[in-house]
Amino acid sequence: MKETPLKIGILGGGQLGKMLLQVAPNYPIEVFVLENDADCPAAQLCHSFTKGDITDFDTVLQFGRNADVITIEIEHVNTSALFELEKEGKTIIPSPSALAIIQNKGKQKDFYAKNQIPTTPFFHINSKAELLSKTSNFPFVQKLHEGGYDGKGVIIIENENELSAVFDAASVIEEKAAIAKEIAIIVAVGQNGEISTYPPTEMIFNQELNLVDYLISPADLSEEEIAIGNDIAIATVKALNSPGIFAVEFFYTIDGQWLVNEIAPRAHNSGHHTIEGNFCSQYDMQLRIYQNLPLGNTAFTFPSAMINILGEENYTGSAYYPLLTKWMQIENAYLHLYGKKTSKPGRKMGHITFLASSIEQLHSKIAAFKAIK
Amino acid sequence: MKETPLKIGILGGGQLGKMLLQVAPNYPIEVFVLENDADCPAAQLCHSFTKGDITDFDTVLQFGRNADVITIEIEHVNTSALFELEKEGKTIIPSPSALAIIQNKGKQKDFYAKNQIPTTPFFHINSKAELLSKTSNFPFVQKLHEGGYDGKGVIIIENENELSAVFDAASVIEEKAAIAKEIAIIVAVGQNGEISTYPPTEMIFNQELNLVDYLISPADLSEEEIAIGNDIAIATVKALNSPGIFAVEFFYTIDGQWLVNEIAPRAHNSGHHTIEGNFCSQYDMQLRIYQNLPLGNTAFTFPSAMINILGEENYTGSAYYPLLTKWMQIENAYLHLYGKKTSKPGRKMGHITFLASSIEQLHSKIAAFKAIK
Repeated sequence: MKETPLKIGILGGGQLGKMLLQVAPNYPIEVFVLENDADCPAAQLCHSFTKGDITDFDTVLQFGRNADVITIEIEHVNTSALFELEKEGKTIIPSPSALAIIQNKGKQKDFYAKNQIPTTPFFHINSKAELLSKTSNFPFVQKLHEGGYDGKGVIIIENENELSAVFDAASVIEEKAAIAKEIAIIVAVGQNGEISTYPPTEMIFNQELNLVDYLISPADLSEEEIAIGNDIAIATVKALNSPGIFAVEFFYTIDGQWLVNEIAPRAHNSGHHTIEGNFCSQYDMQLRIYQNLPLGNTAFTFPSAMINILGEENYTGSAYYPLLTKWMQIENAYLHLYGKKTSKPGRKMGHITFLASSIEQLHSKIAAFKAIK
Repeated sequence: MKETPLKIGILGGGQLGKMLLQVAPNYPIEVFVLENDADCPAAQLCHSFTKGDITDFDTVLQFGRNADVITIEIEHVNTSALFELEKEGKTIIPSPSALAIIQNKGKQKDFYAKNQIPTTPFFHINSKAELLSKTSNFPFVQKLHEGGYDGKGVIIIENENELSAVFDAASVIEEKAAIAKEIAIIVAVGQNGEISTYPPTEMIFNQELNLVDYLISPADLSEEEIAIGNDIAIATVKALNSPGIFAVEFFYTIDGQWLVNEIAPRAHNSGHHTIEGNFCSQYDMQLRIYQNLPLGNTAFTFPSAMINILGEENYTGSAYYPLLTKWMQIENAYLHLYGKKTSKPGRKMGHITFLASSIEQLHSKIAAFKAIK
């Protein structure tokens, strides 16, 4: 008896796709990638690469018709084509309707309100004029309904003097939360509805670049606190009613509230450490979900930390890594370069994960890593 | 400043190369593969694939000249070309002189004798006639000097009636050891001579197919026993005087002797479990050695077991895996298919590694796996 390998089509070819593709050859599947940049991190490792625009209806439709399962590596894809492919009987993970909610930060907030998921108080505006007429409390956060990514399309307005910087476009206006910690909980949902959460990870931000600087997992919280966040993460993802991997990003406030900030409907930066730090990585978990296999074990193996390797401040040019030998002298350090040919200031070139027997040891390793010159 | 990525050329494109290539994209390197079969497991994942004969002098020489570091994935390569490339200043891992000793089972035995490494008593013969004239003790083992692989080229003669089956070629004749356990110790040697051993793994053989059935690591031996084997493994590999990964395969006898059976100068079947079961896998370790990086941590994370997935007895044809869902229901099971398109009886199609908190649990998981129908 012959069975054709399951064909999985991914929209997007960045590092999240690359890390998935490093695990994919373990399974009897073929992975196809659609992406405009033929030099992207995932191009080299996939079964077949298609150069094309993931936001174009016809391109996505054509690409999807050659796959059994279609998934994403970045949210900003043509959802209409995914709805069409769903009608044609393809398996789309995450579901196009979940994706449509998440793609638009306005709809995302309305979804939280409708499903009684705790989030910061908010209202919508359609223009700068409307914003100025409605805003009197500072500080506040403005998030564009559409097109924001990696800290772009989000602005924090601390006081009246900063009002000139606001976007003139449809947006959500949120109260700025009194954040004690930023926490992400990754949730895995199987095609049969089986659901499982990873231990929470705590993100420490580089304020200047508005990017994650490093993360620690499990987060330094009590079991009782974690149980509350976990329940909210599960309720949030259940309301989306879609298989897939979801990163639920929380503001954990100084008075102990868990407020959902946003959801990523895919593998996430806050889950890179799961490759070494958990029994089943978020990438392996995705592959299990696509194949309709039982979910893997989300428990952590050892406490882990993940730090991004960012492009040097004053350098744009061919990527190189002169500190590599020193980095690899740190015990249980795992390098993951993304294969990007060009380094730019602040660009995510890769990450390093550290394993240790305690959270304290992880902080020491991060400090040792940062001290390397 | 621009640095060209280090170019690593591998002779051979089987599953050992495939597993190395799954880790390789983490580093700033490019990996080239030479192999006659364009459908081989490693072809899809490498930076550049060359179809060609790894036993041909000119082919290996040409291929090697385009790399900075040349290594092997199987022993049966053209060593003369590697000696030539070494003269031309290339880094060859393992060294051609180590490889020349290991390629020939006669030289391997002489090497043990010369370096006082415990091994079964032996003598050489050049023909069947010489064998018959010299042999009077049974049982004995005949190993062809050249060309043996995966149980081929080795025969056990239990008594006089079986003598007609012996090979008529230059061979080693060994006493058959009284084996209590078969143990492998993997040794990593850096370019600077740094040396480290992995915890021992115990191999359980499928007698019929003369292939490893499953392995357990760490082996069920006392610390004192392990220390003795470890010292012999280190002495053996130090005598080879070469960087690389080496699997030292032992007969651990019923009276507690450690006898070196043979050495594999590369990643080995007995180290597949290190991907999940050790902090630094044998594949990651190879990549560290090729790049002259510090060695990784060989300690185990959790007790692990590895079982081969073999082609079904009565089936030759397209590979398929109808039991996949049931396999993946076992907790902490890690599938590694090798991407071979055709299944044949007894062919190694992949393996599964299990992690557990005890050796007993591992045996239960193996039993559960075998019971799946």
